[in-house]
Amino acid sequence: MIVRDFHELKKTDKAVADARWTSVRMLLADDGMGFSFHITTLEAGSEHQFHYKHHFESVYCISGKGSITDLGTGETHEIRPGVMYALNLNDKHIVRAEEDLVMACVFNPPVTGTEVHREDGSYAPAGETTS
Amino acid sequence: MIVRDFHELKKTDKAVADARWTSVRMLLADDGMGFSFHITTLEAGSEHQFHYKHHFESVYCISGKGSITDLGTGETHEIRPGVMYALNLNDKHIVRAEEDLVMACVFNPPVTGTEVHREDGSYAPAGETTS
Repeated sequence: MIVRDFHELKKTDKAVADARWTSVRMLLADDGMGFSFHITTLEAGSEHQFHYKHHFESVYCISGKGSITDLGTGETHEIRPGVMYALNLNDKHIVRAEEDLVMACVFNPPVTGTEVHREDGSYAPAGETTS
Repeated sequence: MIVRDFHELKKTDKAVADARWTSVRMLLADDGMGFSFHITTLEAGSEHQFHYKHHFESVYCISGKGSITDLGTGETHEIRPGVMYALNLNDKHIVRAEEDLVMACVFNPPVTGTEVHREDGSYAPAGETTS
């Protein structure tokens, strides 16, 4: 059994940050669960474009307020506590945080922890580290 | 993109309940994500023995207070907001809720939604519905 505490991990290298977001990796590929699990905080007032071409991701809102726009359909959905979105079509999207958004995120295949967001908003497939 | 709201789903058949717990299935096997995602509430004062022999599960505490005992090692860990446990060894365990525990749970392989807890605390493997 693995037991970890977000409040401890966020002081370690399991917390990664980019422009106006922080992600604490609670479970990564090498934990062998077959998915990774992250607690990600998007800063109030920020906007982010992501496109996970090689991963499915689900995102559950624990706290905060914002919206997501599906760039494929143009539809925008409100994000508030209890709302989940799942990128089952590797959907290209924009997330906006009106308040700090705290989200529980699951990735399949699991993130290894060494990926960086590429210019197109994607993570590379596992084993490929350059764009 | 799939968008769902816990507060809506909990009024539907996506909310399943057993003795003193309720689980709202936000994502199931047929959503094709490769994992299932559930928001599970364990009632204050309740105690539950589970043993997912055929599934890995991670559980992240969103709110509440309780503890988990690993029946393999005898170790007990406090559960509070921000604590996650992952049953990477299909660990047999007991969860106790001192306050209502609201937990974000991920299962791999994904739960189909038709499983029932068997007497040994497990879910059957996918495709097998009897004990």
